[in-house]
Amino acid sequence: MTTERKKATIRDVARMAGVSYGTVSRYLNGNEHVSSSAAERIAKAIEEAQYTPNKAARSLAQQRTSMVAFIVQVESISTLMQASVSEAMANANQTLGEAGYQMVTLIANSEESTQRIAQLVQSDFADGYLMFSLSEDDSLLNIFRSANRPVVLSESNSHNTTPYPAVDFANTAGQRDITNYLIERGCAKLAYVCGPGYSPSSIKRLNGFKQAMGDRFDDGLVYYADDWEINSGELAAVAFQPRLDEVDAIACANDDIAIGVINQLHRFGYRVPDDIAVTGFDDSPIALMSDPKLTTVRQDSSLHGREMSQLLLSMLRGEAVDDHTVTMLPTTIVERQSA
Amino acid sequence: MTTERKKATIRDVARMAGVSYGTVSRYLNGNEHVSSSAAERIAKAIEEAQYTPNKAARSLAQQRTSMVAFIVQVESISTLMQASVSEAMANANQTLGEAGYQMVTLIANSEESTQRIAQLVQSDFADGYLMFSLSEDDSLLNIFRSANRPVVLSESNSHNTTPYPAVDFANTAGQRDITNYLIERGCAKLAYVCGPGYSPSSIKRLNGFKQAMGDRFDDGLVYYADDWEINSGELAAVAFQPRLDEVDAIACANDDIAIGVINQLHRFGYRVPDDIAVTGFDDSPIALMSDPKLTTVRQDSSLHGREMSQLLLSMLRGEAVDDHTVTMLPTTIVERQSA
Repeated sequence: MTTERKKATIRDVARMAGVSYGTVSRYLNGNEHVSSSAAERIAKAIEEAQYTPNKAARSLAQQRTSMVAFIVQVESISTLMQASVSEAMANANQTLGEAGYQMVTLIANSEESTQRIAQLVQSDFADGYLMFSLSEDDSLLNIFRSANRPVVLSESNSHNTTPYPAVDFANTAGQRDITNYLIERGCAKLAYVCGPGYSPSSIKRLNGFKQAMGDRFDDGLVYYADDWEINSGELAAVAFQPRLDEVDAIACANDDIAIGVINQLHRFGYRVPDDIAVTGFDDSPIALMSDPKLTTVRQDSSLHGREMSQLLLSMLRGEAVDDHTVTMLPTTIVERQSA
Repeated sequence: MTTERKKATIRDVARMAGVSYGTVSRYLNGNEHVSSSAAERIAKAIEEAQYTPNKAARSLAQQRTSMVAFIVQVESISTLMQASVSEAMANANQTLGEAGYQMVTLIANSEESTQRIAQLVQSDFADGYLMFSLSEDDSLLNIFRSANRPVVLSESNSHNTTPYPAVDFANTAGQRDITNYLIERGCAKLAYVCGPGYSPSSIKRLNGFKQAMGDRFDDGLVYYADDWEINSGELAAVAFQPRLDEVDAIACANDDIAIGVINQLHRFGYRVPDDIAVTGFDDSPIALMSDPKLTTVRQDSSLHGREMSQLLLSMLRGEAVDDHTVTMLPTTIVERQSA
């Protein structure tokens, strides 16, 4: 008997029986912690859904598990806690899983881990690679070349070129747009907190700020942060302090930095946005938790993870993709209370 | 020649030369983007540090890379964005990496991914397993049994028993202590927002609340959330609304829920903590971002990741560890402004 009907899963059975996933799982494993009324409903649901647990498991066991490695390259492990990383990771896992690939995540945060990962890549560890790099260490890129497996990068370089296909956000346009938004709302004197110098996104966002500012760009009102963290925003506000009375707005290269700026401005007695407007970049979950809530540039990290995966899947299907392709994802301004 | 001196790394060279990691990496790869003064300082540092890149890489290439799998089992991918998960993951990666193991992270969030991971475990994918489960699906536990490799769990069950060694927080004591703290500060009528029913931590924290409340425990003032998210806290405050005027404090099973409660109380016109005190659990980064800042129970997720890894490493060295061992990590009250 063949059927076009989608194969029922444990979740379908659980929903039909009105019990949890774990209850069905316990029932199937012969575990005693299932009430008799639940057991009856589960048995009925299994019959109605034509659920066949063993057959599904057996067919899976006969084939090799196809793996895709998601490599996160960071200078510091605290970067892993950025929502943009975990959101992209979760959504890549989802998209690849739906296509039958098991995603494995590898963290490259030291010379040793990078060497171990290089060795795994050379042993043909995975069928394809998603490279989520927030570091300037590009030593893995040559290893990929010799492994001859599809690779998709999370970021193009500061000139928007790339040695492998990349999926990136329109960083320059995003920072230019929100800077113009500040200017249009009457902010004349703008300061900027730039992200760390090793990050192509930092450089692109700074370029966007410069484009919007034109002749009014003043390098004396740019603070170059060492990382993407809240503390760097606090340091920036301290560095700007002698000139804060003349500043109308501070645009920041990400939300964490913007929150640090706001915290420090409050300590100095400035009101945000009444005295000084502040903007972020990313629209991470913390943008909603600051007081005032952050006006920021939204980049959709879920979409980032999905688009990187879909591009890799098309390459795994054998579709030709030019190495220098950069897929640009749009950014949008999110108006809240900080500007 | 033998030497006891610790082998120099690229980072040592970078520090000595006063340049970044990436600059040394580019220098070593013959990349042209290195200034001549930097190149001179790097060459000098390499000589002084007796840094030998090729030898190190060659010796690594001769041995098989040892892997430990960090399996995150979640009901919903949004759970991955919890700081407690990413912090434990980052710190486990660090501890295992220092011992020469490459950690690979696998996300089990569906029946299909659980089956794929089971298949990997059966193929003897890794030398050991860290199981970070935030789900009631325990189907992987039997697979581990047949794989016969060391396993460490992130959580004991609600009776503090465990089929494998586990490293867990003192959830019951933590919730009991902060509830007593509220009572000692004059709160007589307490409500509680319980976490999702599938989580052993939820059940243990509820037990801690009950222990502190004793005879005053009122099940009518307990809201049972479906998940750990902000939205559930908002729903809880709505559910409590008819009785809010008599409530002195609302203890919550985690920080996200507590933030949702505070948001909704503000919408209803209550002041926190003046009208109603609110407490969280976890001391996640968002505890500092709420207004007022959260009084909460601190559990150190970095320590969680490190302790799980160290226990696994001792098992990998062949040390005998009883399957039913539960290592309890302490919790502490963090006093801020919400209670």
